[in-house]
Amino acid sequence: MIKEDCIFCKIAKGDIPSATIYESSDFKCILDVAPANKGHALIIPKEHSDNIYELDAEMAAKVFSFATIAARAIKEETGCDGLNIVQNNGEAAGQTVNHFHMHIIPRFKGDDVKVTWKQLETESEAQNELAKAIKKRL
Amino acid sequence: MIKEDCIFCKIAKGDIPSATIYESSDFKCILDVAPANKGHALIIPKEHSDNIYELDAEMAAKVFSFATIAARAIKEETGCDGLNIVQNNGEAAGQTVNHFHMHIIPRFKGDDVKVTWKQLETESEAQNELAKAIKKRL
Repeated sequence: MIKEDCIFCKIAKGDIPSATIYESSDFKCILDVAPANKGHALIIPKEHSDNIYELDAEMAAKVFSFATIAARAIKEETGCDGLNIVQNNGEAAGQTVNHFHMHIIPRFKGDDVKVTWKQLETESEAQNELAKAIKKRL
Repeated sequence: MIKEDCIFCKIAKGDIPSATIYESSDFKCILDVAPANKGHALIIPKEHSDNIYELDAEMAAKVFSFATIAARAIKEETGCDGLNIVQNNGEAAGQTVNHFHMHIIPRFKGDDVKVTWKQLETESEAQNELAKAIKKRL
């Protein structure tokens, strides 16, 4: 399904031009127009899903399988020092376009990308209980 | 293949206990012992790969396909406001354990997780040339 007024539906459909690395019947891989670093790419499924919660498991498989191939090619071409896969869901997580997409971000020492967090302390019994509760919901 | 002295190989094999959400013959999904937030999970393939460049495309498909299911369950259980998928490769990208793993990080408004970057300006002709160069390496 294509969602009206969704900019990523339009890019995936080709109504808005993009610097395209790869296209299949399922998704497009393009360079981000406002990249974190040179070579920052996005994988955008053609079928609209708002986020990972709505994403079909089969599409997910295709997207990340291709991400391994794209990551190698981007590393080779840019000579990056590292690489992050980032996929944001919800405004609280930094999602700005409500069409599922996966970022492939080449990293260079001293760049302006932040992918960090403070580590919380945990108690193993509480963690085991939480893991069980999540497992029940799978 | 299992790599000696790799802590994630030991966790995946069960030699080190973990708060396990799910286990298949291919991978384990556990709660991070030093989480960014409550419900922070890791998907760890049993077969050792240092990073995404070494990861088999078939394993990648299984990992991210399961991530969609785990993301829904973690959102339901934690009531999080958002959720990030993060997968780091290389020290410059924040990778701390050299065994491929995918983070599922529930997000709460005002938390201490940072997944942000400054956006660079680009010129469309240069972006098209870069996309072509990456495409040739796929």
